[in-house]
Amino acid sequence: MPYYTPAHIGMPLAEVDTPALILDLDAFERNLQRLNDSLAGRSIKVRPHAKSHKCPDIALRQMALGAVGVCCQKVSEAEAMVDGGVTDVLIANEVVGAAKLKRLAALSKRAKIAVCADHPDNVVALDAAAREAGVTLHVLVEVNVGANRCGIEPGEPAFNLAKQIHACKNLHFAGLQAYQGGAQHMRKTEERRAAIDVACEKVKGTTALLAQAGIPCERVTGAGTGTYLFEAASSVYHELQTGSYIFMDADYAKNDWTESGIPRFEHSLFVWTSVMSCPAPDRAIVDAGLKASSVDSGMPSVFDTPGAEYIKASDEHGVLKLSAGTALPLGHKLKIVPGHCDPTVNLYDHFVCVRKGVVEALWPITARGALL
Amino acid sequence: MPYYTPAHIGMPLAEVDTPALILDLDAFERNLQRLNDSLAGRSIKVRPHAKSHKCPDIALRQMALGAVGVCCQKVSEAEAMVDGGVTDVLIANEVVGAAKLKRLAALSKRAKIAVCADHPDNVVALDAAAREAGVTLHVLVEVNVGANRCGIEPGEPAFNLAKQIHACKNLHFAGLQAYQGGAQHMRKTEERRAAIDVACEKVKGTTALLAQAGIPCERVTGAGTGTYLFEAASSVYHELQTGSYIFMDADYAKNDWTESGIPRFEHSLFVWTSVMSCPAPDRAIVDAGLKASSVDSGMPSVFDTPGAEYIKASDEHGVLKLSAGTALPLGHKLKIVPGHCDPTVNLYDHFVCVRKGVVEALWPITARGALL
Repeated sequence: MPYYTPAHIGMPLAEVDTPALILDLDAFERNLQRLNDSLAGRSIKVRPHAKSHKCPDIALRQMALGAVGVCCQKVSEAEAMVDGGVTDVLIANEVVGAAKLKRLAALSKRAKIAVCADHPDNVVALDAAAREAGVTLHVLVEVNVGANRCGIEPGEPAFNLAKQIHACKNLHFAGLQAYQGGAQHMRKTEERRAAIDVACEKVKGTTALLAQAGIPCERVTGAGTGTYLFEAASSVYHELQTGSYIFMDADYAKNDWTESGIPRFEHSLFVWTSVMSCPAPDRAIVDAGLKASSVDSGMPSVFDTPGAEYIKASDEHGVLKLSAGTALPLGHKLKIVPGHCDPTVNLYDHFVCVRKGVVEALWPITARGALL
Repeated sequence: MPYYTPAHIGMPLAEVDTPALILDLDAFERNLQRLNDSLAGRSIKVRPHAKSHKCPDIALRQMALGAVGVCCQKVSEAEAMVDGGVTDVLIANEVVGAAKLKRLAALSKRAKIAVCADHPDNVVALDAAAREAGVTLHVLVEVNVGANRCGIEPGEPAFNLAKQIHACKNLHFAGLQAYQGGAQHMRKTEERRAAIDVACEKVKGTTALLAQAGIPCERVTGAGTGTYLFEAASSVYHELQTGSYIFMDADYAKNDWTESGIPRFEHSLFVWTSVMSCPAPDRAIVDAGLKASSVDSGMPSVFDTPGAEYIKASDEHGVLKLSAGTALPLGHKLKIVPGHCDPTVNLYDHFVCVRKGVVEALWPITARGALL
């Protein structure tokens, strides 16, 4: 448990202690609206990925604007969402191991829960866990549509797994998980579009077999912030799993968005940091290092402070390179944009929610550290 | 707060849920002893860095074996250590901002606390905070001995800052912080040794000025796992700040240790992970991604499982490349060695402490997320 929170409600941003995870509520709300506007007139559903925010306060706001539920990656994340009032969760991932399957089955008594599978042995274990708990588990087949991570191959292998699920007494075959994670950060619009075209063909090769066999495929779900309009326009997908659009991290901002139709989501998530050392005219050290802003997708970018570049992170320090004429005094506070929002959020216990320079709320990140 | 812990006392390791942070107690205790043995006959003190473990249970074991106290990087880390029974903490870092300085001064009423400074304005603020709280704060001058991060330049600048501290009514000048962080991961023994030789010369240039002026310099403190025997042999340093020796991460293991005299510390810290997908003969997916094992210093290494290499991490997945003939069944559990121990520990709430295959204890990581 944290000993201190960096802020309280009503505090001016300037007084918020550092490092803190700042959510600009105006920008965040505009991002929510932008996603909705970009899908106006389409019947496709939105099921945002909660692995990005791990925060029921955000999930409930997404649902209030029409999202059908959320995705999670872990049973413990789903538990945190259900405890926070979310009524519909897709675990867009495989759940393996008796302890987790028992919790999954128990959770399905409290909310509408679905899960993915990509292996026959896992289907057998899911069926047993459902029987044990006296529930029917909704199971989607995860198909490898090009990311080469999890997922069974499309066509016959995926079809056979769906048949196995369909035949299980305690399982309901609930469709296909078809997320092309490898496409999201391809820099060029045309590369991303082409990758989703390939993914759609792989899905169609599977749904055709299901249709022939008379096995209903009630949904195909996938997509991320980098590509979701392509899936939406495909006639193949029924549900979009966008996550990062609410925050927009530095890495996503490097994508080319021209002619994608995807709106320019704003940076709404920042790490608030202080200059803690001014050792040389061309160097300032800030108090947000890699335990405050994840560097797996590159360094954070400095926001709204011309002449300063974040060039190196160690555990508790960030090195800013200052151009000639840029001076940041000791104690000066500034915003940096995380390189990757999801693992950065996972380092904090609260979003410090700010509107027009004043703290409006502290939203607990209740699924922080939810690994199991 | 985590909803579930992955283990309970007495549980066989095979049943511990994944991902979990495993501490092999036998290896950990051997590492503690190896450090002591390597310093036998020297009068130098050991003050291990608690930023690596964030766990009072570990700090108290280090002190029971002779450590004089611990280092921390943040006031909140120091608070967690003092709450856990540690009586002597050096914050080996600058503390900037009124809110933190107030907490620092308050903490110094509960334990022996020292802090670093590298800027005259910070010294003024430290003096004011000490006066306000009615305490005397112990302040070391942090000197840049080659890492080019924080730290004032050695010689006249450092000497002048020490004079300023010495003249402050509410501060006690407590020596020099001289950590060469840039040297720790230089791969070759001779490079590391040469960097510490340079650091020692920089320290000497400062301590000579202090001696001339009659300002007592009671300690010079620094060093890390990569170089500590060089500082110990230098006649310049009084105190060693080794942190990673207790765990030994994958990145440190890449250093060349020959002719350094530094013992071969063992890997004692692991992430316990399960195979959650077997999508292709040459690929297995484990449930520990970059939210379970920090990748800032490279991918984790697979321990004790020949033929498997961890080649890629996403948020909740790790991709293992399998050589021909290697098959890891669904649900198979294995150990991986984090690329960098410090930020990996910061992702968990407990060490699952294992001895001879059985869980002996769960040690809470009470300073997890202590950023302020």
